[in-house]
Amino acid sequence: MTATPPDVIRCAYAELVVTDLAASRAFYVDVLGLVVTHEDSSALYLRAFEEYLHHSLVLRKGPEPALGVLAYRVRTPADLELAEAYYRGLGCPVSRRPAGATRGIGEAVRVLDPLGFPVEFFHEAEHVERFTQRYDVHGAGALSRLDHFNLDTPDVPAARKYYEGLGFRVSEDIQDAEGTVYAAWMFRKPTVHDVALTGGDGPRLHHIAFASHERHQILHICDHLGALRKSGMIERGPGRHGVSNAFYLYVRDPDGHRIEIYTHDYYTGDPDNPVITWDVHDNQRRDWWGNPVVPSWYTDASVVLDLDGRVQPVVERAEPREADVTIGADGFSYASGQAEFKLGEQV
Amino acid sequence: MTATPPDVIRCAYAELVVTDLAASRAFYVDVLGLVVTHEDSSALYLRAFEEYLHHSLVLRKGPEPALGVLAYRVRTPADLELAEAYYRGLGCPVSRRPAGATRGIGEAVRVLDPLGFPVEFFHEAEHVERFTQRYDVHGAGALSRLDHFNLDTPDVPAARKYYEGLGFRVSEDIQDAEGTVYAAWMFRKPTVHDVALTGGDGPRLHHIAFASHERHQILHICDHLGALRKSGMIERGPGRHGVSNAFYLYVRDPDGHRIEIYTHDYYTGDPDNPVITWDVHDNQRRDWWGNPVVPSWYTDASVVLDLDGRVQPVVERAEPREADVTIGADGFSYASGQAEFKLGEQV
Amino acid sequence: MTATPPDVIRCAYAELVVTDLAASRAFYVDVLGLVVTHEDSSALYLRAFEEYLHHSLVLRKGPEPALGVLAYRVRTPADLELAEAYYRGLGCPVSRRPAGATRGIGEAVRVLDPLGFPVEFFHEAEHVERFTQRYDVHGAGALSRLDHFNLDTPDVPAARKYYEGLGFRVSEDIQDAEGTVYAAWMFRKPTVHDVALTGGDGPRLHHIAFASHERHQILHICDHLGALRKSGMIERGPGRHGVSNAFYLYVRDPDGHRIEIYTHDYYTGDPDNPVITWDVHDNQRRDWWGNPVVPSWYTDASVVLDLDGRVQPVVERAEPREADVTIGADGFSYASGQAEFKLGEQV
Amino acid sequence: MTATPPDVIRCAYAELVVTDLAASRAFYVDVLGLVVTHEDSSALYLRAFEEYLHHSLVLRKGPEPALGVLAYRVRTPADLELAEAYYRGLGCPVSRRPAGATRGIGEAVRVLDPLGFPVEFFHEAEHVERFTQRYDVHGAGALSRLDHFNLDTPDVPAARKYYEGLGFRVSEDIQDAEGTVYAAWMFRKPTVHDVALTGGDGPRLHHIAFASHERHQILHICDHLGALRKSGMIERGPGRHGVSNAFYLYVRDPDGHRIEIYTHDYYTGDPDNPVITWDVHDNQRRDWWGNPVVPSWYTDASVVLDLDGRVQPVVERAEPREADVTIGADGFSYASGQAEFKLGEQV
Repeated sequence: MTATPPDVIRCAYAELVVTDLAASRAFYVDVLGLVVTHEDSSALYLRAFEEYLHHSLVLRKGPEPALGVLAYRVRTPADLELAEAYYRGLGCPVSRRPAGATRGIGEAVRVLDPLGFPVEFFHEAEHVERFTQRYDVHGAGALSRLDHFNLDTPDVPAARKYYEGLGFRVSEDIQDAEGTVYAAWMFRKPTVHDVALTGGDGPRLHHIAFASHERHQILHICDHLGALRKSGMIERGPGRHGVSNAFYLYVRDPDGHRIEIYTHDYYTGDPDNPVITWDVHDNQRRDWWGNPVVPSWYTDASVVLDLDGRVQPVVERAEPREADVTIGADGFSYASGQAEFKLGEQV
Repeated sequence: MTATPPDVIRCAYAELVVTDLAASRAFYVDVLGLVVTHEDSSALYLRAFEEYLHHSLVLRKGPEPALGVLAYRVRTPADLELAEAYYRGLGCPVSRRPAGATRGIGEAVRVLDPLGFPVEFFHEAEHVERFTQRYDVHGAGALSRLDHFNLDTPDVPAARKYYEGLGFRVSEDIQDAEGTVYAAWMFRKPTVHDVALTGGDGPRLHHIAFASHERHQILHICDHLGALRKSGMIERGPGRHGVSNAFYLYVRDPDGHRIEIYTHDYYTGDPDNPVITWDVHDNQRRDWWGNPVVPSWYTDASVVLDLDGRVQPVVERAEPREADVTIGADGFSYASGQAEFKLGEQV
Repeated sequence: MTATPPDVIRCAYAELVVTDLAASRAFYVDVLGLVVTHEDSSALYLRAFEEYLHHSLVLRKGPEPALGVLAYRVRTPADLELAEAYYRGLGCPVSRRPAGATRGIGEAVRVLDPLGFPVEFFHEAEHVERFTQRYDVHGAGALSRLDHFNLDTPDVPAARKYYEGLGFRVSEDIQDAEGTVYAAWMFRKPTVHDVALTGGDGPRLHHIAFASHERHQILHICDHLGALRKSGMIERGPGRHGVSNAFYLYVRDPDGHRIEIYTHDYYTGDPDNPVITWDVHDNQRRDWWGNPVVPSWYTDASVVLDLDGRVQPVVERAEPREADVTIGADGFSYASGQAEFKLGEQV
Repeated sequence: MTATPPDVIRCAYAELVVTDLAASRAFYVDVLGLVVTHEDSSALYLRAFEEYLHHSLVLRKGPEPALGVLAYRVRTPADLELAEAYYRGLGCPVSRRPAGATRGIGEAVRVLDPLGFPVEFFHEAEHVERFTQRYDVHGAGALSRLDHFNLDTPDVPAARKYYEGLGFRVSEDIQDAEGTVYAAWMFRKPTVHDVALTGGDGPRLHHIAFASHERHQILHICDHLGALRKSGMIERGPGRHGVSNAFYLYVRDPDGHRIEIYTHDYYTGDPDNPVITWDVHDNQRRDWWGNPVVPSWYTDASVVLDLDGRVQPVVERAEPREADVTIGADGFSYASGQAEFKLGEQV
């Protein structure tokens, strides 16, 4: 007998622990162009141009980089009760937080979910000005809204099952012929995902992603980092994903947290939305143009905190790793089904 | 005492020897969208959408891939006489070609230039419809015009001197602190280049480049190749060059000839146009975003034919190679001047 | 006591009666680039590149241009029973249609809704290939998906109330200080609208809209029509809407049916999504750049058929008309609140 | 016997007299994003992002809006002597200006040309930082460089003849079947124009134009003005010109001076570049999409000063006016050759 899960609307905000607020501000505000809702000596509260809730990203000063919390918005205040009961039923640590425990956010329930991630559910939040048409402050790399979270977790099928229990559905995944699942994309709002599950040592945060309207906005962020002589912050891309069809860029913030900029997602809201399964050996699954994935993208991720602010231990993935079975010493990939593919080796 | 050189307007067309015209047509016409001016069993004559001369690219069927000729347009018919005298003075093989020797091209002078490249000078050419506003046939990856040639040659300073003799000026180059010159960009029309000289084993053709209006047209070519499951034809990019500031993509045709698609060049037409010299160790010189250059881009190039259609021998570069002195086993690069840079290693 | 309405997912397809299928094909397929799922001597079934249901537009040959039906997809087969009961309860004509009555569509309920529009509800539909990544067939003006319907109806508050009964919510509207409502935008899927209600003589179809990813795709459609010497089909735009913030273009098909191409919409899926009310005298409400609305855009619309295929009578709007109270003889508009505004008069 | 004209490279800068420097700064710097090279209480010296000469636009405070001077750069210092002799030969007022007479500009020759415009020729100018890759300061509407001047002059054939004497060539023009010439586009650098001659009451400055790389940069300027509630400054466009094929926007500065933003021009540098003659009745000549030209665009222009700073008298055009012979009471236009065209009347 299972409890009723809360009705999750969408991924809503993330809190990252950063070690140097000024350095983070230079990156998130001056380069990425996020709007500052509030800032003080301990935290920055940021939002993208089309968002009207208080923030979609909190950067909180702390001793070492980590994920503080992932927050999902629920449909009604009553969903908080459902959340509490649901996670207690799962045997997870649960805590109630009064309104304002996080600035701008109403009453909330925080849990350490079965995958080991600190997750918050909230309904109420302070409204602030929506900058949709504030083109006077939109820069050349304007970001519209938070799009999704991407999580490293050792056992993707188990994680998928857990998220299906919360009412998420799969849009796409990556498997091999033996049935190993390497990654899955899952959503509540009708985009390709609110959360992606990536097979790897976890719990760790692989990245959070913001959406832009057009690709030139993403390209500008690259140009901007080049002009600052900070091209080293560009980790991967820009490129076109096979999975999701989105145009993407991965950058690393001053603490190494990975941020994706993302556009050209597709609508998934119909109940029979076709699930796309990609072969892990398909060289176009991660990059439609066949450009190789850099190793750090597979290996690096942010550790996560538990509800008491301690770094969670990381469990190794037992199943084969995508980086190992694809291009490289022991793996292979193809683009056309024949021999034709692009070697990832570089100078 | 030196002879007067011909007055070169711009790079005008290239002839590539290809081994399978149908395969080449699928690439240049169906993917790149070049307009067919004429085709028969031995050759394809192609132009981009804003060109009104008969062709800017000839694909001629032959037994092995090679560069057939590079053609420059000269300002007047009398420049042909100047060209003949100039190259005879240089001791180069020279041949006169009657109008129509190449379809659509008037009387011409062909030489084997001091760098070992087969080069043609012509003034007259047949006019055909300029498709500038034929948006009914422009695809999503529309190309506007031929932009430049890029040549592998062992001794860049010598090659630069030769091209300066022809009236070309340098816009940018790559050097190191010891004065080794790795590459130089030279122009007659007021863009960054009509010809680039890349230090390497030569004479070989590194690539020819076509310009588009905007970046999304270049990105579409990548998407298109992905859809055809031919992502292996994408060799490098898309990216932003440091040198020239252009947005670029390198693709390889079915014979391995390299084609660049290129946009966002700048105006160089004033006599005091500042020359930009890049340090070979600057990690943003080849890609403003610091993305590593793939090895094949440094090593592969097309052999060239002499005036009798025989493959020219290739002379090795004696000076240090850019690929060796930058990222990799023995080299290094920087982005910011400090330690910060992106390792090129890949899975 | 009210019946439970069907759970509408989104606007799903429209059927337009056209008088010349070949002319319509030249417009919708050759210019707009819609994909043909099926065609025969009596109809064309079309879809956009990211759609996997059989069609989002049916063009059916008939004696005079009209709207045949507007179709909404419902969440489950059981919603058909709800729909039938709901509209019978409203006293509307209702008919059940077996699967295949419209090619590609399963069992359906058709009604003549209280506003006088022929509306279909369906759940089942045939799946076809989703062309999301078929970049080999995407043209420069690629369209992604159907976005919304826009309806002329005399009494906007009454129409709004009716659609709220069906579970639609308002995202934006246009009013004046006296409380006259000139238009309202309403949605089920989390975009600005699935249906817009425009105050005017009705029932008439003002337009249907397809979404593209980026603005250059919309601009290409203009360029393409120019190249065909069919610029007369461009009625209004391109421009940026004040309402919805979307970038738009209105074109008229060979029968005069109006099609909008639309991009840059925003997310509306949270329950507290702020409603934006625009003053009818705000000169930037219809075009953020203040460019005047052409008169035909206010006056022209397509008549609609009843369930027996007869043209529905049109009822005149009794309240003030937006075209009359804004720029023109008796109206006025402002941009900044002061006198500054752009006169709409033209040569 | 004619004197040798100076060798003009390109249009180089304009000086506009403005009445409120702060208001002008808010427009040219804060909205258009031009870079300030120098400013003091009497003038602003501005340049676009790819320019390395001191300025391409001077805004000088004065009692009433006017054109102060149009400046062309010449190839060598010796061209100044040629310019002086050439204009003395034409009987024009001529004055020599020492280096620094205009800040940043070397020695110069100023003339009141036969068309009544104050024109400067200079060779030397101070170099400043070229911001080509300063993406950290490029806004979403980044402008690359000055492109051209557009002049109102009563007798276009006479003006054309004068500019041909200076070595300019025609790229395109607008005529009617009776041979009336309504406008001509003329160039030195290989773009469509350095100067356009528009038939109208003159001498007056119709506009100066800056080029951007892509169309989205132009669209952003519209969005930006909308956000500032200054949409009234958008006079015409955005649109695609028939003539030149360029994508355009016309805005009016706080004094009413007209600025065009312009992109997608084509290469004209070959000696046989085809001249395109448009029929004045072709409805797509001024806007490829057939959108009507607003009347102010035909009627308004900036008066010009003589060499002593007095406003030059304006001579009426004697020949038919384009606005009168096209759409409107007495004129007509066509798009397809048949009756089909778009009426310009507006609400």
